[in-house]
Amino acid sequence: MAELAIAVDLGGTNIRAALVDDGGTIRHLVSRPTQGQEGPEAVLDRVAALVGEVVAHEQPGPEVEVGVVAPGTVDPNEGVVYYGPNIRDWHDVHLRDILAGSLNRTVLIGNDANAAALGEARFGSGKQVRNLIYIGLGTGVGGGVISGGELISGKRGFGGELGHVTIDPSGPRCTCGGIGCVEAYASGWAIVRDGELLVQSLRSDMLARMAKSGPVTPRMVSQAAEAGDPAAIAIYDRAARALAAGLGGLVNIFNPEVIVIGGGVAKAGNLIFKPLREALPSYTMPSIYDGVTIRESSLEAHTGIYGAAALVFHAREHQPGRH
Amino acid sequence: MAELAIAVDLGGTNIRAALVDDGGTIRHLVSRPTQGQEGPEAVLDRVAALVGEVVAHEQPGPEVEVGVVAPGTVDPNEGVVYYGPNIRDWHDVHLRDILAGSLNRTVLIGNDANAAALGEARFGSGKQVRNLIYIGLGTGVGGGVISGGELISGKRGFGGELGHVTIDPSGPRCTCGGIGCVEAYASGWAIVRDGELLVQSLRSDMLARMAKSGPVTPRMVSQAAEAGDPAAIAIYDRAARALAAGLGGLVNIFNPEVIVIGGGVAKAGNLIFKPLREALPSYTMPSIYDGVTIRESSLEAHTGIYGAAALVFHAREHQPGRH
Repeated sequence: MAELAIAVDLGGTNIRAALVDDGGTIRHLVSRPTQGQEGPEAVLDRVAALVGEVVAHEQPGPEVEVGVVAPGTVDPNEGVVYYGPNIRDWHDVHLRDILAGSLNRTVLIGNDANAAALGEARFGSGKQVRNLIYIGLGTGVGGGVISGGELISGKRGFGGELGHVTIDPSGPRCTCGGIGCVEAYASGWAIVRDGELLVQSLRSDMLARMAKSGPVTPRMVSQAAEAGDPAAIAIYDRAARALAAGLGGLVNIFNPEVIVIGGGVAKAGNLIFKPLREALPSYTMPSIYDGVTIRESSLEAHTGIYGAAALVFHAREHQPGRH
Repeated sequence: MAELAIAVDLGGTNIRAALVDDGGTIRHLVSRPTQGQEGPEAVLDRVAALVGEVVAHEQPGPEVEVGVVAPGTVDPNEGVVYYGPNIRDWHDVHLRDILAGSLNRTVLIGNDANAAALGEARFGSGKQVRNLIYIGLGTGVGGGVISGGELISGKRGFGGELGHVTIDPSGPRCTCGGIGCVEAYASGWAIVRDGELLVQSLRSDMLARMAKSGPVTPRMVSQAAEAGDPAAIAIYDRAARALAAGLGGLVNIFNPEVIVIGGGVAKAGNLIFKPLREALPSYTMPSIYDGVTIRESSLEAHTGIYGAAALVFHAREHQPGRH
């Protein structure tokens, strides 16, 4: 019989819950808007209700654990979210114990991008890979590293902040307070910032036309770039070069087999992958870069769910008495 | 009875061998110049002779393994040095198997800076610490990371190249072929390069006077800085800021408890530690930087020997059937 996990992706916009088996089949998926403005209690009730739906429908045994991934500063050891975006008063939330109480199941929690690395290594583009770097280019840039089969988490589990590595001390200010972080070039917000600047400075007629229909989005910038707008292409080039500098250092540190790139910005495809592949060798030592493969995430919209399921399966394997 | 290890530090200048116990006592240490110009065979004979001396003197049992650390590109899994500096024809050397044959003992090999991280976590400034970053500021910059008690090594064991992380894409060229690496600012060779530039451009009378007695050394630059020479102070400031940018990214990735800084350049003390401590917070996320301690290495001249011994003790603990 297949092993099962209950997976919850507690995002800023939507909460999703599902039953996932160890073959990577999502057996039942339910989703509802997070409505974070209502605060922690309402959000936690919503999580419990969604898990209840999955359980009622699929009847997993009481020993099947719940994995929950959430953005922000998550301590997986203590089971606490210290801070997360998009939910009112969402700090110092004892997420694990509260949910374990209301669900009457073992609960594991983790940062969404860290867990995504586990998900890619189990179900996705890095299946069976023991040394893998995952970087997610979303509104922000998050990531996770699997080294020797283990997730890099550090003392309190806050590690893996791959987007917050300075690659240029005279670069743009980052939301984290740092300067010239990878996120300040290759995130959704950075691309919007650069796109807006093109519109304001009259450097892209094409983007200016698009922006008449609403605020600049990364999608608009990539459409302009795909249509040949040189200033829009330059935005993705700069993002890719920053990503190459950041990933280059990570390659030299982790000697990985595979780099998996996910998130909405990665959907720009070769606008970002081509200059990235061209630039990466110049930021790595040849003996270490040799044999590294760069892949797009194959989990896409289900990255959160697979990450949450991987948290459960990974923990089970590390407590062999458990099963 | 104390556990024992035979430790060999196979450096470019000297080969050192010793018997080390698990309490960190070096029971017997012998040393001889490497004379790398004579090539691999002569050097390997010298290693075997030194180990022979240690064994003859201390009579460790035949089950006591030999740990060997060497600079360069070392594959600890295959037991091969792919490339190392300062020894003629020193590439693709099957160091582990050759020595195991001549010594009739189990041999483990590792990169010297990677092993130094294990040494610091066992015997040195990071004793008992499970999440530690070691960076050695020598002629080059090497390093190693212990995450969750394990050495980060990657697919082929080439990881941990902490000196080769780009912190400024418009920075100076590095010996590795990269640009703006930490090593290109904070290594011995970078400080000599910067010191020579001061002399050539007549920007430091003090250093120019010192340089009359011979080529510029890092020690000369630090002496000039200690005597108040502003241009020499600026060299260490720049090195420290580059180190802060590089270490800042590593803090965000590894969420460590302790950073240990070793190597000859670190002997400049507060010339480098003070600006480093001042700059590091601006390159880290506050929740992750909180609680990080920066320490100077306490192993100093014995870093190589302790690293080699730590290789042996670490491997033993991971093969619990062995003892």
